[in-house]
Amino acid sequence: MAKNETLAALKIIPLGGLHEIGKNTCVFEYDDEIILLDAGLAFPTDGMHGVNIVLPDMTYIRENRHKIKGMIVTHGHEDHIGGIAFHLKQFDIPVIYGPRLALAMLEGKLEEAGVRERTELRSVLPRDVMRIGKHFFVEYIRNTHSIADSFTVAIHTPVGLIIHTGDFKFDHTPVDGEHFDLQRLAEHGEKGVLCLMSDSTNSEVPGFTPSERSVYPNLDRVFSQATGRLFVTTFASSVHRINMVLQLAQKYKRVVGVVGRSMLNLIAHARNLGYIKCDDNLLLPLQSVRNVPDENVLILTTGSQGEPMSAMTRIANQEHPHIRIRQGDTVVFSANPIPGNTIAVVTVIDKLMMQGANVIYGRDKGIHVSGHGCQEDQKLMIALTKPKFFLPVHGEHRMLVKHSQTAQSMGIPAENMVIIQNGNIVELTEESIRVAGKVASGLELVDTSGSGMVSAKVLQERQRMAEEGIVTIAMALDWNGKLIAKPEIHLRGVVTSIERSLLQKWVQQRIEEILSVRWSEFAPSFD
Amino acid sequence: MAKNETLAALKIIPLGGLHEIGKNTCVFEYDDEIILLDAGLAFPTDGMHGVNIVLPDMTYIRENRHKIKGMIVTHGHEDHIGGIAFHLKQFDIPVIYGPRLALAMLEGKLEEAGVRERTELRSVLPRDVMRIGKHFFVEYIRNTHSIADSFTVAIHTPVGLIIHTGDFKFDHTPVDGEHFDLQRLAEHGEKGVLCLMSDSTNSEVPGFTPSERSVYPNLDRVFSQATGRLFVTTFASSVHRINMVLQLAQKYKRVVGVVGRSMLNLIAHARNLGYIKCDDNLLLPLQSVRNVPDENVLILTTGSQGEPMSAMTRIANQEHPHIRIRQGDTVVFSANPIPGNTIAVVTVIDKLMMQGANVIYGRDKGIHVSGHGCQEDQKLMIALTKPKFFLPVHGEHRMLVKHSQTAQSMGIPAENMVIIQNGNIVELTEESIRVAGKVASGLELVDTSGSGMVSAKVLQERQRMAEEGIVTIAMALDWNGKLIAKPEIHLRGVVTSIERSLLQKWVQQRIEEILSVRWSEFAPSFD
Ligand SMILES: [Zn+2]
Ligand SMILES: [Zn+2]
Ligand SMILES: [Zn+2]
Ligand SMILES: [Zn+2]
Repeated sequence: MAKNETLAALKIIPLGGLHEIGKNTCVFEYDDEIILLDAGLAFPTDGMHGVNIVLPDMTYIRENRHKIKGMIVTHGHEDHIGGIAFHLKQFDIPVIYGPRLALAMLEGKLEEAGVRERTELRSVLPRDVMRIGKHFFVEYIRNTHSIADSFTVAIHTPVGLIIHTGDFKFDHTPVDGEHFDLQRLAEHGEKGVLCLMSDSTNSEVPGFTPSERSVYPNLDRVFSQATGRLFVTTFASSVHRINMVLQLAQKYKRVVGVVGRSMLNLIAHARNLGYIKCDDNLLLPLQSVRNVPDENVLILTTGSQGEPMSAMTRIANQEHPHIRIRQGDTVVFSANPIPGNTIAVVTVIDKLMMQGANVIYGRDKGIHVSGHGCQEDQKLMIALTKPKFFLPVHGEHRMLVKHSQTAQSMGIPAENMVIIQNGNIVELTEESIRVAGKVASGLELVDTSGSGMVSAKVLQERQRMAEEGIVTIAMALDWNGKLIAKPEIHLRGVVTSIERSLLQKWVQQRIEEILSVRWSEFAPSFD
Repeated sequence: MAKNETLAALKIIPLGGLHEIGKNTCVFEYDDEIILLDAGLAFPTDGMHGVNIVLPDMTYIRENRHKIKGMIVTHGHEDHIGGIAFHLKQFDIPVIYGPRLALAMLEGKLEEAGVRERTELRSVLPRDVMRIGKHFFVEYIRNTHSIADSFTVAIHTPVGLIIHTGDFKFDHTPVDGEHFDLQRLAEHGEKGVLCLMSDSTNSEVPGFTPSERSVYPNLDRVFSQATGRLFVTTFASSVHRINMVLQLAQKYKRVVGVVGRSMLNLIAHARNLGYIKCDDNLLLPLQSVRNVPDENVLILTTGSQGEPMSAMTRIANQEHPHIRIRQGDTVVFSANPIPGNTIAVVTVIDKLMMQGANVIYGRDKGIHVSGHGCQEDQKLMIALTKPKFFLPVHGEHRMLVKHSQTAQSMGIPAENMVIIQNGNIVELTEESIRVAGKVASGLELVDTSGSGMVSAKVLQERQRMAEEGIVTIAMALDWNGKLIAKPEIHLRGVVTSIERSLLQKWVQQRIEEILSVRWSEFAPSFD
């Protein structure tokens, strides 16, 4: 077969989601067509001063915007949909397919950002198959995860079938009764999967991730023992957890006040779509909750990660406009701290305890489980799909390495997988998988003020000023380069033990020295 | 008995070490005498820009410096001795008693800071009893911890005997063969202990802390499997761990190059005092190590916490002047990340792996154990000493609470213990324990530049500039309040999408508006 008859390779280019958890964004490119899979955001790490949101470098997409045929959304988590509104300000996406819950949440974001008209949102149901462009057919396969309405996708491409797991664990007793569609996975495994791209979040953790439902009896025990008000905090997006908390509130005759905009939002959408079921009169506005006896009150809030502006943190800091902790309150942290948030979370816990709350937290309480599968879940995924090639995604480098070792332990040869970094171009053919280059990768940082992007230079300036402070000197000169008044010295963020008047004197001396020697050099520039 | 015949109360005032781990500093005051127990430092947390070292607020000590009769040091960790050099710049301490290893390390610090003459260092041996002032007798009781030469102290005071555990775990198979002096603890328990002040670090963790020796077989397995160079990183102060690593190096015929000043320092002191035993020719300068075949090389380094300037981090960043990672290297993290350091540590691990190293890390490897006792160790301490009153120390608030619950589970009544905060004055008599007020507490922040203390105002300015950047405008006016040149605008760390010429125009307009309206108000101030 002559070379020009060979089938072209499919390009897979993850722009985010590797060497970090967050901002999952992946390009599938064939011929002159691109489809995108998810477009998430991440949150700033230490040293990213004044940065609100972190996005992947989208240079490659901007330059190839004319190729974009559409986007596939797997589920409604911020690390999968949080970047879309930002990207739509820069380029159109003809169509975005996604689960109903994810699209309901996305629609609000797009409207807020004023970019709702830049795309078309089309919701999907399990086993729907969408044609995107000439080359791609995408099938939605129901999976189980911490948010409801989550999907694995099977992407039929000219080189073969790719299964992208999305975020998943195998939860055989899902809270909403929506089971993982193992049959479809197995059927694809039987027919032949060219490549599996699989969630690596918990690849370092042995065993199976417990079912979300395993949390229920432990939360039930906490509810049964609480005598005063009960506070529960969890991720705003943990639909199943929130669902169970509401069921328990009903059981223990507590009305529920929800605090935190993102959680109110999610509950509204999830109830609309039937993923959360509860009586209308269970949920009360916060003002009305105040008139209910303590033992009949549940406050459900955001802030499980100690986020500085969240409701729970403001309550702990005694800065919340409506809520103060009282002796006898019980506060439940139904979420583990994400690495990097630990100090913030325990500080909040300590403050709540100092104000008299009984705080229930920690891994040994059984009040939180992960939404991502561990090593045995990952093995089951590989066993069901029997892929020829394997591409671990959604994780930091060492997680990808560990995941690839798991795959090798199941008989997939090491040469049939690649460990990649953001921006790598993976070329996939019927016969091979390889890294064939690199596009621009890195970060785009959105400023807290919302007024633009924080460049590397601006960030460096901020870091420097944060470390050392800044000295400004204002001076007035005559045409002969003589000071005509004392220079004004301002220190901001500067530590010095030198007395002010002495500092003034030194600076003035130094300025006069410089002027006397170098005025002739400076002067011409005033012409 | 008339009131003035009543025995005065003993005051215990912890200035640091509560609601954080670090900067342990405690005052014991009776009548006109003060003794200090330890004086440590802590490291800055997020948002403490340009801060190098965190110390407790020492106002109370400075104001009562004339009462100080001496200091007791329990062991050589930074959170127990790291503050002493700073304090000696402000007030003298007549005498400091401490273990030989701790004092050897302290002496270096005092010399470096130029305050060696401000105190007298006297080393102690197990069961030594020192009289300090008129009122205090202090007995040193050998304990087991992650650093060698560590002590629990029994403080005989006019109101009764106080046992302060220092940092401890019960390690019945100590690496250096120096056993915990359980007999002395039990004897005091038999005679009567008024109050136990006990290490709360691991009060949230069930069970016993494993012996340091349990790490040995796991490290041995790693050594036996390494084929190329071997890197081991741990805390610079973990004498026992370093001892075992050196023993294994000898066993596996690897010469050892030590990287990191603090570790070199500790090894020198510990070898001098016999706490580390190894052949002289085992340790080689880094230059000579380069000529040794890979399989005979061990590099022992600091940086187990991902500290930005540490050797291991610089190696990972490919910024170390002498060492580059090569395919085939094995790197062992024999330390768990302290909360708050997790992200830094895993980032270093990822970078090392990307450069081809086989990195051994994680809790499941058995290559690290804590130096602090867990719940069962804490119970054994209470069981041996049988205290009347209980005062949990060395821990964050929730750990103190948990520790107090452990004590209650053993029959100590809740009213016989207090949960305190830094700066609380605990009054202890033969009959009662209570919080009787508060002295100034909080933080003193040492600037990175070493030039002074970072005040709250300076910190706030730095935080603000880090978030938002700074705009400076220089303008030249004539005597009538008219601009005589275009104002000069400088942006540092500022994000804006406004074009430079437009910004210039806007600022100039605004200045002219203000001047035209308010010049008459400003003008007089130039007289
Ligand atoms: Zn997710
Ligand atoms: Zn995700
Ligand atoms: Zn300590
Ligand atoms: Zn210690």
